[in-house]
Amino acid sequence: MSSLRSWFSIPRGSHFSLANIPFGIISTASSKTPRVAVAIGDHALDLEAFAASNGFSALSTIQPHQAVFSQSSLNAFAALGRPIHSVVRKYIQSVFSEDTTYPNVLKTDFDLQKKVLVPLKDVKMHLPFKIGDYTDFYAGLNHAYNVGVLFRGPANALQPNYKHLPVGYHGRASSVVVSGTPIRRPNGQVLSNPAAEKKVPALSPCQKLDIELELGAFVCKANNMGEPVPIGEAEGSLFGVVLMNDWSARDIQAWEYVPLGPFNAKNFGTTISAWVVLADALAPFKTKGLENDSEVLPYLKEKDEKTFYDIKLQVDLKTPTGNSTTISKTSSRNLLWSFPQMLAHHSITGCPMQVGDLLGSGTISGLEPGERGSLLEQNENGKTSIMLSGGDERKFLGDGDEITISGVCGSDEDALVGFGQCVGRIEPALKM
Amino acid sequence: MSSLRSWFSIPRGSHFSLANIPFGIISTASSKTPRVAVAIGDHALDLEAFAASNGFSALSTIQPHQAVFSQSSLNAFAALGRPIHSVVRKYIQSVFSEDTTYPNVLKTDFDLQKKVLVPLKDVKMHLPFKIGDYTDFYAGLNHAYNVGVLFRGPANALQPNYKHLPVGYHGRASSVVVSGTPIRRPNGQVLSNPAAEKKVPALSPCQKLDIELELGAFVCKANNMGEPVPIGEAEGSLFGVVLMNDWSARDIQAWEYVPLGPFNAKNFGTTISAWVVLADALAPFKTKGLENDSEVLPYLKEKDEKTFYDIKLQVDLKTPTGNSTTISKTSSRNLLWSFPQMLAHHSITGCPMQVGDLLGSGTISGLEPGERGSLLEQNENGKTSIMLSGGDERKFLGDGDEITISGVCGSDEDALVGFGQCVGRIEPALKM
Ligand SMILES: [Ca+2]
Ligand SMILES: [Ca+2]
Ligand SMILES: [Mg+2]
Ligand SMILES: [Mg+2]
Ligand code: NI
Repeated sequence: MSSLRSWFSIPRGSHFSLANIPFGIISTASSKTPRVAVAIGDHALDLEAFAASNGFSALSTIQPHQAVFSQSSLNAFAALGRPIHSVVRKYIQSVFSEDTTYPNVLKTDFDLQKKVLVPLKDVKMHLPFKIGDYTDFYAGLNHAYNVGVLFRGPANALQPNYKHLPVGYHGRASSVVVSGTPIRRPNGQVLSNPAAEKKVPALSPCQKLDIELELGAFVCKANNMGEPVPIGEAEGSLFGVVLMNDWSARDIQAWEYVPLGPFNAKNFGTTISAWVVLADALAPFKTKGLENDSEVLPYLKEKDEKTFYDIKLQVDLKTPTGNSTTISKTSSRNLLWSFPQMLAHHSITGCPMQVGDLLGSGTISGLEPGERGSLLEQNENGKTSIMLSGGDERKFLGDGDEITISGVCGSDEDALVGFGQCVGRIEPALKM
Repeated sequence: MSSLRSWFSIPRGSHFSLANIPFGIISTASSKTPRVAVAIGDHALDLEAFAASNGFSALSTIQPHQAVFSQSSLNAFAALGRPIHSVVRKYIQSVFSEDTTYPNVLKTDFDLQKKVLVPLKDVKMHLPFKIGDYTDFYAGLNHAYNVGVLFRGPANALQPNYKHLPVGYHGRASSVVVSGTPIRRPNGQVLSNPAAEKKVPALSPCQKLDIELELGAFVCKANNMGEPVPIGEAEGSLFGVVLMNDWSARDIQAWEYVPLGPFNAKNFGTTISAWVVLADALAPFKTKGLENDSEVLPYLKEKDEKTFYDIKLQVDLKTPTGNSTTISKTSSRNLLWSFPQMLAHHSITGCPMQVGDLLGSGTISGLEPGERGSLLEQNENGKTSIMLSGGDERKFLGDGDEITISGVCGSDEDALVGFGQCVGRIEPALKM
């Protein structure tokens, strides 16, 4: 794919090239009301201000809907549907392209540029969607296998249902936060001696605080209750993708999760990256996922197998002393089930999906030791230590540790489609 | 408790005596915009219209907030806090009492009575809250024990964590519906031969469609992320209670639920009763729950043990031929954990609770065969049949079956505090 050249200065290597145009919610010191923007290079284009100054004069389809850009979430814009997202993205690309056919919209209007283009360092990012329901899947086959081996041995590592349906559970929507929000170490019930016959739990700060490297996808089309989303229409119900860190309290989880699944171990915080990369922008990076050697039921069978994304993912851990170590590098193609499959399965019962619902992929791990998306897998459930630069070691996360997930598609430094970062730092537990 | 006498005609035996004053969301043929009302006898008092006609003239505290009564959900009213709910309820009771000190507010204003008092048969009820997150607990000890015996035998019926923490899981908020909404039998993956070594699932209409008799409680106070709700403050964070039927697809659940808990088995519909009975109205019916013979950690320990409600619950099944059978009668005191305990546990990690969040109690069963809150327990997971009047039999629900849950506190027919009904009828599965 040849890169689009722009009259606007977009730094080489930027995640937000003209090939991307991700959407997010910003506010600024001078205008504190959250509103819709796109990222271009190291600037945000304030779409509320752009629309108010007649920036969409050459795009008649969006004009009746311009109020969506003044909303404090992307829900209203997303609800307009994939074809509208597509024309808006293409229009913005054309406005910024070197040989734009609309030079007077922005290229030659220096006053407007000053008004609507805000350096990213000066914007505050907000949660991009008002999330009605959040569902976390478990589609990372290598992760599920690694964890299964730790707890049940290699013969029974995967449950019998694993390759037949995208295993998932309902998560907690209220604790999904935007990148940069501090995460407080949770208190909860843990067993100090899990092997003891008589189980005696104590209330304690979580001692096995972990990360989960995931993708999140946002729904942009509702279905009526009782009417499943057919697999062939599922892709068209997905708005775009973010990076996600599903913080996990392994010791709380081990004690609580039988028989109804993880609860408190997962409800204290889930961090997502701030800029939502549109499905359209990711289309050139579609690829096959992991091979499923089971027969998949028709309601989950996709015509096109290339419904996964090849996003280069990286996880960095920075200790309170400032030393940073890359602890994982992998690709998001390491999934057994695609987002369209998750959506088709989720709704096969007639479950009503709503605009702004968030689907988590499950932890993404590759096959190699350096490709694991959770500390649990890296330290074999606490048996070994993870060596960090600067001589530090970790089993699980310490107070003050900062986790940064980054993700990017492509190799042309002038046409990257990236997600920026998904960052969270651990604060000490509340004294109980 | 002596009954409050009213100048207004409230039928003897009404669930909505002057001792109750439950809140709900109504619309009418002549005014289709949903708004807040209370139920009194067999009428709804339209609080939007009442406020607009200066009905709250003698209650200065509510006057700056009267816009809450024009909302399409109770969230804004609930967010005003327990002291305000209390004064509004007491004011309405005093307006309706025989010897009201405000006779000209309504008692002697016949025109206003016509305007604001609508027969319940002429109102359409809506979902009372905009539910951000819905969490379903499992606090019905007898139910958990009965189900445990069916699947694991009496020795291991309860998991080791059961008496130490209120087991719960995050549910699906988007499919919580108001009483009367039809429930379509879900399709999903089931094993036709669960005992076979090689597990081969098929897509099928659920064959083991079940009910779960539960209470639901709504949250009226948010906590900041990272800051647990102390057990001593949890009761003050609860708005009120509804009846709940947590429809469950047992065959889908059996195949999907390991290791992350029920998902599709629970996301196709959860029915709640339309009128929310305030915590204040239930206060006279507080009682102890089931005894917990484990040592409970301090963050779950309540000063007062009487934090459960003695609500007489009943489940009726009506077949398509019109025969109706009472299939269960029990009391809501059959719980091991109270709603304040559930809230304290839910938030101990710092999970942010929001106004409008719904907490489900878990299935409520007594000790006797006629007191079981699910068909699964009644039919011993399909081994026996439930005999219905008119000669019908059931293992699980058939198409066209209608389930009605009712619940009421008290025995003075002029001072009942009841919930009305929680009704749902099963529609045939969609042909796939
Ligand atoms: Ca996860
Ligand atoms: Ca339940
Ligand atoms: Mg999480
Ligand atoms: Mg349900
Ligand atoms: Ni009347």
